[in-house]
Amino acid sequence: MTNNKISIIPLGGLGEIGKNMTVVRYEDDIIVIDSGLAFPDDDMPGIDLVIPDMSYLVENRDHVRAVVLTHGHEDHIGSLAYLLKQLNVPVYGTNLTLGLAEGKLKEHNVANYQLIPVQAGDAVTIGAFQVGFIRVSHSIPDSVGLYFKTPVGTIVHTGDFKIDQTPVDGKLIDIHKFAELGDQGVLVLMSDSTNAERPGYTMSEKTVGETLKEEFAHAKGRIILATFASNVLRLHQAIQTACQFKRKVAVNGRSMKNVVEISQRLGYLTVPEGVLIDIEEIDRYPANQILILTTGSQGEPLSGLSRMASSTHRQVYIAPEDTVIVSATPIPGNEKLVGRTINSLLKLGAYVVYERTSGVHVSGHASQEELKLMLNLVRPKYFVPVHGEYRMLVQHSKLAQDLGIPKENIFIGNIGNVFEFSEEKALIAGKVTSGKVLVDGLGVGDVGNIVLRDRRQLSQDGIIIVVMTLDKERGCVLAGPDIVSRGFVYVRDSERLMDELKDKVQLVMDRYEPGKVMEWSVIKSGVRDALGKFIYEKTRRRPMIIPIIMEV
Amino acid sequence: MTNNKISIIPLGGLGEIGKNMTVVRYEDDIIVIDSGLAFPDDDMPGIDLVIPDMSYLVENRDHVRAVVLTHGHEDHIGSLAYLLKQLNVPVYGTNLTLGLAEGKLKEHNVANYQLIPVQAGDAVTIGAFQVGFIRVSHSIPDSVGLYFKTPVGTIVHTGDFKIDQTPVDGKLIDIHKFAELGDQGVLVLMSDSTNAERPGYTMSEKTVGETLKEEFAHAKGRIILATFASNVLRLHQAIQTACQFKRKVAVNGRSMKNVVEISQRLGYLTVPEGVLIDIEEIDRYPANQILILTTGSQGEPLSGLSRMASSTHRQVYIAPEDTVIVSATPIPGNEKLVGRTINSLLKLGAYVVYERTSGVHVSGHASQEELKLMLNLVRPKYFVPVHGEYRMLVQHSKLAQDLGIPKENIFIGNIGNVFEFSEEKALIAGKVTSGKVLVDGLGVGDVGNIVLRDRRQLSQDGIIIVVMTLDKERGCVLAGPDIVSRGFVYVRDSERLMDELKDKVQLVMDRYEPGKVMEWSVIKSGVRDALGKFIYEKTRRRPMIIPIIMEV
Repeated sequence: MTNNKISIIPLGGLGEIGKNMTVVRYEDDIIVIDSGLAFPDDDMPGIDLVIPDMSYLVENRDHVRAVVLTHGHEDHIGSLAYLLKQLNVPVYGTNLTLGLAEGKLKEHNVANYQLIPVQAGDAVTIGAFQVGFIRVSHSIPDSVGLYFKTPVGTIVHTGDFKIDQTPVDGKLIDIHKFAELGDQGVLVLMSDSTNAERPGYTMSEKTVGETLKEEFAHAKGRIILATFASNVLRLHQAIQTACQFKRKVAVNGRSMKNVVEISQRLGYLTVPEGVLIDIEEIDRYPANQILILTTGSQGEPLSGLSRMASSTHRQVYIAPEDTVIVSATPIPGNEKLVGRTINSLLKLGAYVVYERTSGVHVSGHASQEELKLMLNLVRPKYFVPVHGEYRMLVQHSKLAQDLGIPKENIFIGNIGNVFEFSEEKALIAGKVTSGKVLVDGLGVGDVGNIVLRDRRQLSQDGIIIVVMTLDKERGCVLAGPDIVSRGFVYVRDSERLMDELKDKVQLVMDRYEPGKVMEWSVIKSGVRDALGKFIYEKTRRRPMIIPIIMEV
Repeated sequence: MTNNKISIIPLGGLGEIGKNMTVVRYEDDIIVIDSGLAFPDDDMPGIDLVIPDMSYLVENRDHVRAVVLTHGHEDHIGSLAYLLKQLNVPVYGTNLTLGLAEGKLKEHNVANYQLIPVQAGDAVTIGAFQVGFIRVSHSIPDSVGLYFKTPVGTIVHTGDFKIDQTPVDGKLIDIHKFAELGDQGVLVLMSDSTNAERPGYTMSEKTVGETLKEEFAHAKGRIILATFASNVLRLHQAIQTACQFKRKVAVNGRSMKNVVEISQRLGYLTVPEGVLIDIEEIDRYPANQILILTTGSQGEPLSGLSRMASSTHRQVYIAPEDTVIVSATPIPGNEKLVGRTINSLLKLGAYVVYERTSGVHVSGHASQEELKLMLNLVRPKYFVPVHGEYRMLVQHSKLAQDLGIPKENIFIGNIGNVFEFSEEKALIAGKVTSGKVLVDGLGVGDVGNIVLRDRRQLSQDGIIIVVMTLDKERGCVLAGPDIVSRGFVYVRDSERLMDELKDKVQLVMDRYEPGKVMEWSVIKSGVRDALGKFIYEKTRRRPMIIPIIMEV
């Protein structure tokens, strides 16, 4: 007798953007879809990146059969190294995806790993599953959606996708496969909700190439094009256009160099002989014979483009008549950074092409009409909108309802939810451990809420440290109180305030008669209260106050 | 013989958004246009607000004849209290503007002030100037542009404006006055660049009213409308629509209550008897008879709407079937906050109307076609685009060039620049003190770059404090080293690391033979170096390290 249900457990990417990771489980066979990272929010100061809580996988380590990757973006492969350090399982993916993933694994010194290359169109058997890889369009080549044929029914996961009818590399999304699966019957569809709030159709990547051609035709000086390192087809279009206009191409930025190198090696990017030059060589050519491809389209302070904008780049200075093309839309939270970079470039006299309406960028995600098409092709019994914040999932769910999928067959859930599906019914059957694990430097998970709360408080009003040396036996102050502050006020201008603080501490200490027993915790809270109150009245600020008592 | 030049000195709002303040000077007569504030950037943790450096005005205090206000927004009146505390000069403005300004002055306990009300259409003589007030459309009533007739020529300042052909209150922007001035000849035009990057026309405020009507017609539960407190005409439209659909109106949020009270008192907002109810009373009415107007359209964590979204509001809970209308676009930097609030509202089951395309918000600033119309009406000899970041000024300058204003007659400058204009020539003649003054709690200007740098460092990796008590004479450690950390790692999980840090400090101290003279600064830098290196190798973090030595 077979168990008649299949479980889907999202560990990341549901109700949030990034750190995508989804578990599909049938009896004792577990497959993990993607292992991504997310970038920290504003309220996580100092954090480098965020990965999914993988406890469920570690606890079920004996059942995890494989990781299957949909594409090579950080939010889908960025936590693979952290996973493989805990769990040695085979990883399936297309060539470019595995090429990029392998780079990450080496960076993280992961010694043992097993990467199994597949191609779009392939299907492999893993445990009780037949897993198939379906070509989709996205902002990185070799992206796939997935299907899982199981004893209970077929599950389809679109991965990140759009429907580009005129793909730059001629490789059309495999509409036929989605249609065929729909024909045969699909139990559950998980589909990308990133652009579920956007009406209409997402433009083809090819339109960017056309806009680039126009800009190249008018450009007088150098052209600097900033875009996402991994958008290989955009790099391809830029390089092609450069060839057409007889410009040499230099690549700037470690991640972009890395992508160009891997893409060339694996055959995803063909550059004619003699076109690529080293960034050190650009001064040997006239300005109108140069294209520089660079990272930094998000205005990141230490990135290539920002350094050029602030005239601190080692090789590239911006001259009047240069054209800078920012071929990206600021991701939420980065608008100001990007704006500042553009201001600086304009001040240097550059001609800057940057607006959303300028045609130099298109999204990699499906808009509403494409999402509807996908739903109509696959015609699933149950629908789980994935990859998106709650409001995007809600919007995607509305689209599905408009197409006739009953509301009770649509599941808007959270990470950690265990969705159980069978031909007869579907429900949220429980909850497993899930959440954010914060990576700060070499520490994974050692920064939690308390540390973050302290960092936030420190950043608001700084810190005041009060140090005293006490003779506990004789019950008197031997040295101090000394007061040290950071991030509170500029001390040189505030000597009087610091003296007043000392007096306040002294008043607290005066309460103790010499020779009487001193309770340190009482002294500390007395100092904290007295200073806190005084400082707030005087300045309306609440610095962190740390009394430290030494005993001799 | 008269001096044949006039100076314009922007002290805020040029090359930046906010803290608008512009000086117009003819010989010894100075007039100040607006006295605004700005909100702090991400890189100013803990700062409450930013005001212009007013040193130039304080140094020239005997020449400052008046402040003239264009409208009542914070970025135009928010630093008036700080100015009047240093300088007692008369303030001119329209009724609503002065009403709002007076509220601020009382809040700041400014005792002596002289507010002189004017109406759109008025002109007054101040020193050598004839100053005229011209009605414009903007997102707050009673907004004016200004003209200054001087012995050298006429200067026009648009203030913040749009050209609303169907104003809600019937008060059309005074196109005729701008045309008349243009006919008579204008030396310099300063015009609002906020939306210079936006093609086309900004929609009329009236279109928002129409959208509201549609939403009200469909709404089943309560309606909660979040918008900017000062958008009186939007509040007016919402209240009117509420009356039409027989809903009572409750106002939530101190600033909005304040604006409603002032607007009613001064006759800018008429609410039929019995429509306004106290927020405490909403539970006495059925859900479909309630409209709540609230602050918090920018997702500010402690605002009305955010409290409702997080179910921590004292009076208002969100129920399924409630309609929440976010009648605003997130200002740059607030997208994530607004997004989070919307997610939470949706999770509570509310129907949320929020998109830019939904028609529930329009901008208060002129888009490109309106900016061109203004330039063509006024036909200035010289043009200074104002109110905007550099890229907006550049875009506005391009528009002006397209209309035939020669590039050399357009001035894109910075705050502090002294622009000198005469009939014969124009130039940037020098520079005066200008900049940002940071307000943190009660402190004005006491937080500078060093304090901010410390706050930023503290927020990234926290702080480690090392305390020792030394016997300087005997050259030995009496107590410690003790190590206290905040915002670095969660100490309970990291006891071993803390012990290692102590050992490292001990190693530094072991270099000193007992009885030898100890140089405190050498010990301190020794401790800082040893710990810094060790911590970075071990964790890849760079906490602030503060060694404190006490002497007994």
